[in-house]
Amino acid sequence: MSFFEKHKEKLYEAMIALHRRHYFVAYPEHPGAYAEDENAKGKAAFENQLGKPFTQLLQKADAQTGSEVSPYTLQKNGVTYPAHDAATLVANAQAARKKWNDAGVETRAGILMESLERMRNRFFEIAYATMHTTGQSFMMAFQASGPHAADRALEALAMAYADLIRFPKETDWEKPLGKVSVKLHKTYKPIGRGVGLVIGCSTFPTWNSLPGIFANLACGNPVIVKPHPGAVLPIAIVVAEMQRVLQEAGFDANTIQLAADSPENPLTKKLAEHAAVKLIDYTGGSAFGRYIETLPDKIVFTEKAGVNSVIIDSAENLDPVLQNLAFSVCLYSGQMCTAPQNFFIPEFVKEGDELISFDVVADRFKKQIEALVNNPKMGAGTLASLQNENTLQRLHRSKQLGKTIMEAHAVEQPGFPMAMTCSPTVLVAEAKDSAIFEGELFGPIIVLIKTKDTNESVSLAKNMALKHGAITCAAYTTNAATEAFIISEMEDAFVQVSVNLTGFIWVNQHAAFSDLHVSGGNPAGNACFANPDFVNRRFVWLSHRKLVTA
Amino acid sequence: MSFFEKHKEKLYEAMIALHRRHYFVAYPEHPGAYAEDENAKGKAAFENQLGKPFTQLLQKADAQTGSEVSPYTLQKNGVTYPAHDAATLVANAQAARKKWNDAGVETRAGILMESLERMRNRFFEIAYATMHTTGQSFMMAFQASGPHAADRALEALAMAYADLIRFPKETDWEKPLGKVSVKLHKTYKPIGRGVGLVIGCSTFPTWNSLPGIFANLACGNPVIVKPHPGAVLPIAIVVAEMQRVLQEAGFDANTIQLAADSPENPLTKKLAEHAAVKLIDYTGGSAFGRYIETLPDKIVFTEKAGVNSVIIDSAENLDPVLQNLAFSVCLYSGQMCTAPQNFFIPEFVKEGDELISFDVVADRFKKQIEALVNNPKMGAGTLASLQNENTLQRLHRSKQLGKTIMEAHAVEQPGFPMAMTCSPTVLVAEAKDSAIFEGELFGPIIVLIKTKDTNESVSLAKNMALKHGAITCAAYTTNAATEAFIISEMEDAFVQVSVNLTGFIWVNQHAAFSDLHVSGGNPAGNACFANPDFVNRRFVWLSHRKLVTA
Repeated sequence: MSFFEKHKEKLYEAMIALHRRHYFVAYPEHPGAYAEDENAKGKAAFENQLGKPFTQLLQKADAQTGSEVSPYTLQKNGVTYPAHDAATLVANAQAARKKWNDAGVETRAGILMESLERMRNRFFEIAYATMHTTGQSFMMAFQASGPHAADRALEALAMAYADLIRFPKETDWEKPLGKVSVKLHKTYKPIGRGVGLVIGCSTFPTWNSLPGIFANLACGNPVIVKPHPGAVLPIAIVVAEMQRVLQEAGFDANTIQLAADSPENPLTKKLAEHAAVKLIDYTGGSAFGRYIETLPDKIVFTEKAGVNSVIIDSAENLDPVLQNLAFSVCLYSGQMCTAPQNFFIPEFVKEGDELISFDVVADRFKKQIEALVNNPKMGAGTLASLQNENTLQRLHRSKQLGKTIMEAHAVEQPGFPMAMTCSPTVLVAEAKDSAIFEGELFGPIIVLIKTKDTNESVSLAKNMALKHGAITCAAYTTNAATEAFIISEMEDAFVQVSVNLTGFIWVNQHAAFSDLHVSGGNPAGNACFANPDFVNRRFVWLSHRKLVTA
Repeated sequence: MSFFEKHKEKLYEAMIALHRRHYFVAYPEHPGAYAEDENAKGKAAFENQLGKPFTQLLQKADAQTGSEVSPYTLQKNGVTYPAHDAATLVANAQAARKKWNDAGVETRAGILMESLERMRNRFFEIAYATMHTTGQSFMMAFQASGPHAADRALEALAMAYADLIRFPKETDWEKPLGKVSVKLHKTYKPIGRGVGLVIGCSTFPTWNSLPGIFANLACGNPVIVKPHPGAVLPIAIVVAEMQRVLQEAGFDANTIQLAADSPENPLTKKLAEHAAVKLIDYTGGSAFGRYIETLPDKIVFTEKAGVNSVIIDSAENLDPVLQNLAFSVCLYSGQMCTAPQNFFIPEFVKEGDELISFDVVADRFKKQIEALVNNPKMGAGTLASLQNENTLQRLHRSKQLGKTIMEAHAVEQPGFPMAMTCSPTVLVAEAKDSAIFEGELFGPIIVLIKTKDTNESVSLAKNMALKHGAITCAAYTTNAATEAFIISEMEDAFVQVSVNLTGFIWVNQHAAFSDLHVSGGNPAGNACFANPDFVNRRFVWLSHRKLVTA
């Protein structure tokens, strides 16, 4: 049985879910849903890899490179990866291309589905690798780099598959011409555009890269995966599994390659500027993202930085609102691209029938954050660790930005005395102080902005999004007209709005198959996980035709 | 009954045809299929317009502009159009935007369908306007600017409609959390990216512009139509009809605007570079197309020039092959973007069991062209007229390019003694003489290139396409392996291949709903009429979500 036959039911399920957009998961997010010994085995496998060359890849190089540091221990992990030059990687990808492209949609989809099953077997190992490169908590590392990433990969594959089979493989066309007719046999074939480059980030090494990898491969394009040098191991494990499946199925393992590099010898620009690289997926900072977007003759998919807003207008009860937002702020120390930064709060917020002043709201919010940070069961685990020293320094400097009502301080991370775990900085500002809040303050730094009224809040949030981009907007209002107004205004900046989230759902979370991640319509990024545009630009439809003679 | 209700069956039919890719026409291509008096009425309406301001547009301006010349009479037609500055046009479009976008998919589609019906009533008038701006024959002008253009517009609309309704308008999402669950109500909305600019060409003023116009409007984007100053009237008639339907339906007529300009006061760059213009559709020369493609922060759809190839390997009988190709060469004097230019012919071509030398093939081809040119019933009508003096001069100079076996000469055009009707120039070259044939020789200029064998023919055709772009490739072979080889090689350059066309079907012709026009994968253009990419890039999917409380 082919891989496609083996997995096609799951692929069809994913296609349907994607088009219905209801709740669907292919890989359960709870570690408890997996076999009992998997955690221990995964941990052992991770620990066994430390300090050694990573030898699982089916790509051989003369040199090795590696520079990962655990944010929890500040120790190098000592893992090294094959080091190639850009020209070799591109030539390998080009050599693999035609066979992969000509294999057809079903064969490619089958191999990719099988790859996800192999990845599933290593979710726990990937989780430890993620934790000790990104600084995420174990739980987030497991979910984001394991099942959530696999779901997003499957989503991209399902989107691609739906569009790759959109037109028939062949048709008979007959044009009547009075008593006679002209008959043509026509064939339709999607052809991948060429070599794809996927540039990863240091915070979500598999989640942010797998959609582009799977979309490219599904559409017939070989992929070069260029991870952030600080977070290589999680995606290296996935690439290794994919190379094995490719080889088993008789394809060139170089159809996907890992392009590990180091800060001293970066590969990214060399790869991105190579004429044979036609497609680039990028996650990371805005300045480099802008460079990627303006490279000539490339098709690029970017997720850059944004300035996410919260608009608080009114609530029946502010406590669950502020509790929910406190969690969003603390979760992985605001290092998610979806984390809120700017909180627009009017002079008075309506709580039930009462008007609550800005200062009281700010104080109640601060107390909610403090309660979470100081909660011995929740605080350190929610904050996890900053990924790197730059973020730590930015956090230290953040109190100089303006009036600070809560100053960042170190938080003890049980078991990891060296971890970069810190409480958030909370600043307050006036609407006119846009210099403070108009850029991205990456990490656990938020600004509470006092506005005249919700109209001013919306206007500021919208203009920030138009100018600097935004991925999320959380709005709280009990007024239907205000809700419609906020949505309509934020639509002008192509920002999706989450209304009145409280309890066990947070604005940071985007569910695969249902929530579109990044709209692609403002400076936060030009691409979206996973709309039709995310896949259609990766291939070209060709139709050939031949005269049918009697 | 709404326009959508009135026309939805036809729209659904078009959507199905587009996805099946079988033979389908919404508007018959034969003038005889229309009411008997329509031709005379259309001619009278056209003649009545000559020498007067065009007053049908619902856009008022202080000045008028107009500089069209009939290629058949070399007389100015004396029609003038409202002249606006770029800032006014963009501001008008922006003012119309939100209402149009918020009207929703069905309302927009209904108005566009109704617009096509109104256009249908003026097909004959548009035909005369096209003939006397482009130099096309009456028959081609009728078909290309009338029914074929309307079919392509409907195709783009159907493609857009299919993708705009791809996700549900709303869904209830419920995530189980053990004994409880989280419920979100989610909405999905496609939002147009912003103001669209459609830049027309002088040879196909409606056919090449309507797909972009309809795709933009379907996706919620107001459109500024910037026709070539030499071919305004055909599209002005369509824009006027569309403005009337918009106004009838209660929308701002400026949702579509005509941006007529003149060679002395060109508007194109001012419009294209305006920050509020987000989408650009362009048909025309490669140099300006390249400028359009490299404008920052625009989404662009281009159809530029290409170098189309014919690969002759073998045939049972060469006469019908060469007769077919002679027609392709002469049809509208090679001014179609799909017309063949470079004919790769090996030293020996297999005809049945015989080997025919290059020189003999060239001579037989030349005779077929001469026979068509000199056919009193066919010649002048097929050649029609060159569109402008530049093409005429290029043709005059073409004999200096290399060895000429057939020199262009004037051909009498009955009824139009001043028409720029000429026979083609036929050059012969060796494979090494790529300087002669590697650029586009716009107009009735072709090169017969002697190659060692079909392998060399294919290699040259492929490399030309990769380097300079190509829209069509016609191949003639009786050998299945050779056919597969040609297709596989041309696929690497994203060129669609037409195999063994003879009789009443020509490589120049692309049928709406079935043939993809331009692949979008090589330098001939980055867009395609009409694949999913042609519509999906024009809008952004947004999903909002709201907590559902019990």
